[in-house]
Amino acid sequence: MTEIETRTTVPALDQDARAVLFSEAHTTNTFTSEPVDPDLVRRVYEDVRWAPTSMNIQPLRMTVLADREIREEVVTHVWEANRAKTSAAPLSLVVAYDPDWHEHLPHLAPHRTGARETFADHPDRREAMARQNTWLQLGYLILGLRAHGLHVGPMVGLDAAGVDSVVHRENGWRTLCVVNVGHAPDPEDPAAQRPRAGRLEFDQACQVL
Amino acid sequence: MTEIETRTTVPALDQDARAVLFSEAHTTNTFTSEPVDPDLVRRVYEDVRWAPTSMNIQPLRMTVLADREIREEVVTHVWEANRAKTSAAPLSLVVAYDPDWHEHLPHLAPHRTGARETFADHPDRREAMARQNTWLQLGYLILGLRAHGLHVGPMVGLDAAGVDSVVHRENGWRTLCVVNVGHAPDPEDPAAQRPRAGRLEFDQACQVL
Repeated sequence: MTEIETRTTVPALDQDARAVLFSEAHTTNTFTSEPVDPDLVRRVYEDVRWAPTSMNIQPLRMTVLADREIREEVVTHVWEANRAKTSAAPLSLVVAYDPDWHEHLPHLAPHRTGARETFADHPDRREAMARQNTWLQLGYLILGLRAHGLHVGPMVGLDAAGVDSVVHRENGWRTLCVVNVGHAPDPEDPAAQRPRAGRLEFDQACQVL
Repeated sequence: MTEIETRTTVPALDQDARAVLFSEAHTTNTFTSEPVDPDLVRRVYEDVRWAPTSMNIQPLRMTVLADREIREEVVTHVWEANRAKTSAAPLSLVVAYDPDWHEHLPHLAPHRTGARETFADHPDRREAMARQNTWLQLGYLILGLRAHGLHVGPMVGLDAAGVDSVVHRENGWRTLCVVNVGHAPDPEDPAAQRPRAGRLEFDQACQVL
């Protein structure tokens, strides 16, 4: 093993910053009326895209529903229980994947010569890799939105093909979920988040061998 | 829509903090010799567990490979190209899921009366939900490790059943990937990370409708 000099400063986030991402952030269903500029979502994406994916395939695609009428069309394809909160959110995002992510491989993984052509013959394998890595990137996206001061309400309860028929007719992307974004009300407000559900302790979810 | 008072302060991370998570963090395959205390991984988990999952199921499980001999047994089940870097990493984690996550539902989702019993009869649905949500939680975990000052090298190139035979014999968890953790060498060091691969621009991966 090559001996490598130890770095003297290890950048890490302080507890307040980590609380914004994790311990103090709640899934939010009722937002304040403060609007969210779609350009903020662009800046979030420009951070999130740097986090790693298998073979650097980056299959996540996103539609920012800035137009209220188009959003209302999307809302007709989410489950009943998710409709009112989606209509009322300051902004909603459709998170999807591109089953044709291999077309970008010459740019994303130039050292893998011929990979685009190989994957062109394996749509099922592409689909599986796209879904796995979009779930992974959804994790990055949720924390990226929080890092930019937004609160999020992700939901998978929807008719994906129905949402596709509204927003993906031209590009062939496939819907995974909808994420509502905005600002959470003051926690003292009675309309604020529900009390927090339980979490597993380290010793329930992890082992040290 | 209920009128909710706008919050005056929106906590967000500054650019330096976001760079630790996203733009300045690289996938790392060669680490310094500085060790990683397994207790730091516990603190990371205790942050990461707060991020959302479908129905709050939290299926991610993790094994911290603190014992070098056990790690070497695991290494025999990762693909050839991943062996040397895993043996040499300061610490390695096996990320897995629990196909029996429904056993925890009375604690995790107490308002869903009878959900544990319903899911008991649907192992295939449990498996699908477990895999999706563990990929999601892997995204949180990778950023959580970075938030605590660690660098990460995740890899899916392994024989999952083989890894299971070493570390999951007693609990029935199923391996998803291995994540090497440690501290990255100084970027000026020639052993440091490879030059960065390309990323998709917002206008390639997103649309505003």
